[in-house]
Amino acid sequence: MKFTCIKEEILNALLVVQRAVPSKNPLPILTGIKFKAEGDKVFLTATDLEIGIRCSFPAEVIEDGESVIPAKLIIELIRSLPDLPVFIESDPFTNSVEIKYGQSKAKINGYPADEFPDFVLTSGDLHFNMPGDVLAEALRQVIFATAADENRPVFTGVLLEIEESCIHLVATDTHRLAWRKILMETSLGSNIKFIIPGKTLNELVKIIGPEQKVDLTFTENQVLFNTDNTLVISRLIGGEFPKYKMVVPGECISKIRINTSELQDATKRAALLTNEGAPIVKMQITDDTLIVTSHTEAGHVHEELKTSRDGEQLQFAFNARYLNDILKVIGSEESYIEFTGPLSPGIIKPVSDVEYISLLLPVRLRGD
Amino acid sequence: MKFTCIKEEILNALLVVQRAVPSKNPLPILTGIKFKAEGDKVFLTATDLEIGIRCSFPAEVIEDGESVIPAKLIIELIRSLPDLPVFIESDPFTNSVEIKYGQSKAKINGYPADEFPDFVLTSGDLHFNMPGDVLAEALRQVIFATAADENRPVFTGVLLEIEESCIHLVATDTHRLAWRKILMETSLGSNIKFIIPGKTLNELVKIIGPEQKVDLTFTENQVLFNTDNTLVISRLIGGEFPKYKMVVPGECISKIRINTSELQDATKRAALLTNEGAPIVKMQITDDTLIVTSHTEAGHVHEELKTSRDGEQLQFAFNARYLNDILKVIGSEESYIEFTGPLSPGIIKPVSDVEYISLLLPVRLRGD
Repeated sequence: MKFTCIKEEILNALLVVQRAVPSKNPLPILTGIKFKAEGDKVFLTATDLEIGIRCSFPAEVIEDGESVIPAKLIIELIRSLPDLPVFIESDPFTNSVEIKYGQSKAKINGYPADEFPDFVLTSGDLHFNMPGDVLAEALRQVIFATAADENRPVFTGVLLEIEESCIHLVATDTHRLAWRKILMETSLGSNIKFIIPGKTLNELVKIIGPEQKVDLTFTENQVLFNTDNTLVISRLIGGEFPKYKMVVPGECISKIRINTSELQDATKRAALLTNEGAPIVKMQITDDTLIVTSHTEAGHVHEELKTSRDGEQLQFAFNARYLNDILKVIGSEESYIEFTGPLSPGIIKPVSDVEYISLLLPVRLRGD
Repeated sequence: MKFTCIKEEILNALLVVQRAVPSKNPLPILTGIKFKAEGDKVFLTATDLEIGIRCSFPAEVIEDGESVIPAKLIIELIRSLPDLPVFIESDPFTNSVEIKYGQSKAKINGYPADEFPDFVLTSGDLHFNMPGDVLAEALRQVIFATAADENRPVFTGVLLEIEESCIHLVATDTHRLAWRKILMETSLGSNIKFIIPGKTLNELVKIIGPEQKVDLTFTENQVLFNTDNTLVISRLIGGEFPKYKMVVPGECISKIRINTSELQDATKRAALLTNEGAPIVKMQITDDTLIVTSHTEAGHVHEELKTSRDGEQLQFAFNARYLNDILKVIGSEESYIEFTGPLSPGIIKPVSDVEYISLLLPVRLRGD
């Protein structure tokens, strides 16, 4: 392998694939990034065996070939280079690469390229595409509701369910549920369900550029996201996702319309005092005001927000961190909060055309 | 205590005095910031009993008084407020304060103001002033060379020695020494020496604004820095500072002149490979080139820098982190590196009028 490239281009590609390099107890070779020079491009690949990322950048390839180079070292080195053309040449006998820049050079010892695990994707069963900004916004609106606890794998993933031309994205950790619909132009089939690891999607949304189109391909147990010069492959999660449609409560007894960022700020301030444990804030819907309060040994906060109310006056309490997770991604200036009863989940929706709802279980307080 | 103020002004003052709030195992009351409303100002004070900082901000004081409020809570609260006037009122019976903003309010429980330790400064023995940017630059050029190890207190401080109109600032951790001279317009006395804690000066340089004048006042065991609306008091360190003038080597056998940032970058790259332990880089002065190299199991780096040489060709090795500490603060586009012998300290100086030198002990390599 022998090629010349531009510092910024190789660095950007390295930073993309780096997201798949495992940070904990990996096989030594997985701490490396695989380089493959071919035609007028160099392809970089990294994987932790659950997720794999491939990204290419343009290069003047003098000799095709492959090499695996420790991710941390090559990234730090390339990052610290002057803005000069970078020349990289591998030595297949020692598994090392030489990096030349200006009058100087570095040599980094690597791993045998043929021992790097291969990407496998059998041809897909389902295939469609959508604009990167639509996919990224929709994913952000649900990813936060996935569970971190690996003991119940389905809760760590996002359900993607297809019903004709509607794609449902759903995540829940049993305390909260987020559900976003995306309407496609044509039918993609029916009764199709996949559970994609939240971790994969978390990396994906950081990689997708707003003006890119993303191709999605599904097999029985893998998903492939393909955009411009980057490709993300991930295993899917097996198991049955909870019946989310049954969880959404019916007729509401009270509904308020409120400024999203004002509610976010008031909730954050009220949560400041609750340093330890879950940051519980109380809310009270009165005439045209939402009162947000918290009381702890450190003091108390009392916030009053203008709102328009439709229905009963009522009182409830939320985990402020969970509420904030929702308000951060709701993507509209104003939000609705609806209740079907004081102890049933609150329903939070954007005041917009986007088909998105989040459910949040209220916290039961002593004395309720 | 009762006053109204502007959010940004109280926040900035809080962030300045916060630097003196102890982070580890303090007396509970020292986690607080003392508020004192008087005239048209509010004075904030914090201290860890070694360093004390007082900072004032303008306020519409309705009632004079004092209060001690937990630093973390009041800072986070004020930071998260909307841009509205802030009204603060203390309740001396409960040691709490109420903060009102817009339609909302918070109450934070505090400490009895009369239990907060007082600043003491007996009138000074020595007094002078200098521009803030001069003092801050000079301090930055020496602070890095102080030792972290509290077992030998004099090495954790910066010596300030006065010889007529010359102020010497010196620090050393025995591996390296930094010495900066500041010339004053008039004589300040002679044979005057103080050792100021490095920690104090580290906080001070972050507080001094470039266009401020700083007043310095010394007593036998305290120093006071006074600028505009901020006052920093610190204990001095007792003991005898090493005789630094004797350490500076005599006639050099080799001298190079080199671009500071190029040397910095090359040294950083060479140090990348040396992940564990001290990052040792080798340097070799040949004809008109400085060759910077490192060799480890991970690979090697070979950097070539143009230089102009005066004297012998020679080889030496430095701890890259120590060299970088010096180059970061040297403040000139080009630097001199001088040697009196291959194993005597390297002398690093700016190519400028500033009277500054840094000594750095070379590392002895196997085979030297």
